[in-house]
Amino acid sequence: MERVLAGDLKSAMGRGPVRLMGWLHHQRQLSHVAFVLLRDRSGVVQLVVEDAAVRSFVAALRAETVLSAIGTVVANEQAPGGFEVHDVTFEVVSEPADDPPLELRRPTLKEHLPTILDSAAVALRHPRLRASWRLGAASLAGFRSALDARDFTEIATPKLVSSATEGGANVFTVDYFGRPAYLAQSPQLYKQAMVGVFERVYEVGPVFRAEPHDTTRHLAEYVSLDVEMGFITEHSELMTLLRDVLASMLEAINQRESRSLALLDLRLPDLPAAIPEVDFVEAQRMIEAATGEEVVGEPDLAPAHERWLGEWAAREHGSDFLFVTGYPTVKRPFYTHPRPDRPEQTNSFDLLFRGVELVTGGQRLHRHDDYLSALAARELDPAPFAAYLDAFKYGMPPHGGFAIGLERWIARITGAQNVREVTLFPRDSTRLSP
Amino acid sequence: MERVLAGDLKSAMGRGPVRLMGWLHHQRQLSHVAFVLLRDRSGVVQLVVEDAAVRSFVAALRAETVLSAIGTVVANEQAPGGFEVHDVTFEVVSEPADDPPLELRRPTLKEHLPTILDSAAVALRHPRLRASWRLGAASLAGFRSALDARDFTEIATPKLVSSATEGGANVFTVDYFGRPAYLAQSPQLYKQAMVGVFERVYEVGPVFRAEPHDTTRHLAEYVSLDVEMGFITEHSELMTLLRDVLASMLEAINQRESRSLALLDLRLPDLPAAIPEVDFVEAQRMIEAATGEEVVGEPDLAPAHERWLGEWAAREHGSDFLFVTGYPTVKRPFYTHPRPDRPEQTNSFDLLFRGVELVTGGQRLHRHDDYLSALAARELDPAPFAAYLDAFKYGMPPHGGFAIGLERWIARITGAQNVREVTLFPRDSTRLSP
Repeated sequence: MERVLAGDLKSAMGRGPVRLMGWLHHQRQLSHVAFVLLRDRSGVVQLVVEDAAVRSFVAALRAETVLSAIGTVVANEQAPGGFEVHDVTFEVVSEPADDPPLELRRPTLKEHLPTILDSAAVALRHPRLRASWRLGAASLAGFRSALDARDFTEIATPKLVSSATEGGANVFTVDYFGRPAYLAQSPQLYKQAMVGVFERVYEVGPVFRAEPHDTTRHLAEYVSLDVEMGFITEHSELMTLLRDVLASMLEAINQRESRSLALLDLRLPDLPAAIPEVDFVEAQRMIEAATGEEVVGEPDLAPAHERWLGEWAAREHGSDFLFVTGYPTVKRPFYTHPRPDRPEQTNSFDLLFRGVELVTGGQRLHRHDDYLSALAARELDPAPFAAYLDAFKYGMPPHGGFAIGLERWIARITGAQNVREVTLFPRDSTRLSP
Repeated sequence: MERVLAGDLKSAMGRGPVRLMGWLHHQRQLSHVAFVLLRDRSGVVQLVVEDAAVRSFVAALRAETVLSAIGTVVANEQAPGGFEVHDVTFEVVSEPADDPPLELRRPTLKEHLPTILDSAAVALRHPRLRASWRLGAASLAGFRSALDARDFTEIATPKLVSSATEGGANVFTVDYFGRPAYLAQSPQLYKQAMVGVFERVYEVGPVFRAEPHDTTRHLAEYVSLDVEMGFITEHSELMTLLRDVLASMLEAINQRESRSLALLDLRLPDLPAAIPEVDFVEAQRMIEAATGEEVVGEPDLAPAHERWLGEWAAREHGSDFLFVTGYPTVKRPFYTHPRPDRPEQTNSFDLLFRGVELVTGGQRLHRHDDYLSALAARELDPAPFAAYLDAFKYGMPPHGGFAIGLERWIARITGAQNVREVTLFPRDSTRLSP
């Protein structure tokens, strides 16, 4: 007998007995009936058991027992999903060795985050946690389809590298056959080099940051959605592309994950056809005028200022999204292209989503000489970058790109307070397991 | 004026002047005319220059100069692709700082592999190298679409782990905030744990093997296409799935990369609807009968034996592909499920492609107790695996999966002798850069 999924019961109505397979999510034993909740990849189904022998068989089973159940589908408005299964018989497919360490049956897990993360492999079985990740998986599909449609090439660049790409101290060291190697902090210079080959590239892969401070927004390893495009004139073309990529990610969620959205009681943000934008210095002037704080001249925006801008964008433009452009050169990485008319600012942008930075991007330098000058201006030794910079020696068009952090994206979409809540197996300075 | 790609010239016929952008691939200066080859992401176009001033302008340019060219499209059967561009004027978009270290203009690069790999960022601009990778990128799309259609969930599991997943000495050690961590040799136990959450999962990501010996088939870092599926009965269901996934990968290449296939002069292999299969012991008996070598009783197949089997499959079944099933338990990883009727063999398989192993897969253990027994039988300490094995404590259905090495797949499809030829930036014991 072929298996039917919990989410497809409607199609199994009137077909006689059907087989369901899944996990024993929960059971309520009443005096003459047992309500058994069976969970599979599509959802949870209610099985109604009246037979006394079957009831006592089920009563003895641990939560999370893997079961095969045969029964008849019946419409019932009271049942979750509008259908339930009657006249059920069970077979145990696989028995647990122990009771689960979490109460998966609760609508929301009540355990504290560290407990949930310690038991991640089991905790993720909870329908809400599972649904959050599914939004991320759908987002990946939407990301790729937008870029495939625009003739981008997917690339895979090495994570074991010979020098830190983004500089700074937050780089992991690897024992590489007896000599030091590093884990790539980003595919930055590789994706730029690949513009010389494919013009337009993207990569979805892990990046590594040895962040010593645990915050709710940072992980030691996360999934970066990287894009790089050649033959641009300036960063505004990247902002248009980013808007369309995000629209495709949201559309993929809407199309593929209506069940997850309903379960999480989420409505996705509206993405305007043109996302409002504000210049960095102009943004600082507005904040100064509104708050009285002295911020003009500061090289970066504090989180409180980003929140202020998020509220401003919602109020003035009715938008959850806001581009801030023209970040100061001193605070952007050495590969950032300066503003031609005002070189203390850059052809770069951040995209704020509800007042939190979601995406960083911009135009890059494309001339070999400009790289040497930029490294010299920052007193960085060009030697460790020599192999990367080779690509720029041999003719590279103006180009730029951006990177979206997958886990941060899911956190913003779901409203999770901590990025760890929506990461399958988060890594930070104190957590390397499971 | 909007840009037209080299591959789209036909659509630009009769439209008046068009703009092309790309790299100066090669030029031949004759007495009254210059033939300039411009390369963009779609291919190479011939520009015919008669004007003396333009000819001398172009003659002074280095190879790989980034150019914008305006001219009129003309049909010419002699020209590559059947079209060329006349009355051309040029603008330099970006000037190289040096001559390229390789002769990209040659139909096939003549430089030795180490030279090519040392200059990978530039060498990959060669149309043949570029085309090989594009076959890989299309394969990734085909892999995902087959699995998305079967309700699989894409996952991203950590590459920084607290213990070696596949055992053995070939694991890289990372300094993780002052304590040791390891780079994941595979997502094996994570993808299995995720069967408890999503039932069906896949992951495309880097895996890391500290292989001290350099061979033409091994890399220290490669892209693994991992699949895991729950609620199976035995490994044959995985073999059916694998066949369909490979069919989708080949179909995606055929649909998206006809240009690359033509350039590489490749015909893709025929994939039979049912791939022939042979039992491991039966295969050894055939090899012994045919060659006189004593192989029955050996725990593994030597590369020469795999080649013999590849020839046998071609001869007897007309197939480039052959499944070998039932590998001995002693040579498979601890998580492999034994054959119920013959526990010295396993419910596992290798897929040989033209006599070389391409994919390994099989059914896994799913009971916590069986894991403890399997680890004990191999005298492995269960402590480092405790966190992974937790998932199996709480009800896990029978499941299994497989993994395809992306670079090895491209090498087999293209006939590359060395997997490094088709890897963007290969890593091995002697190579960590570029």
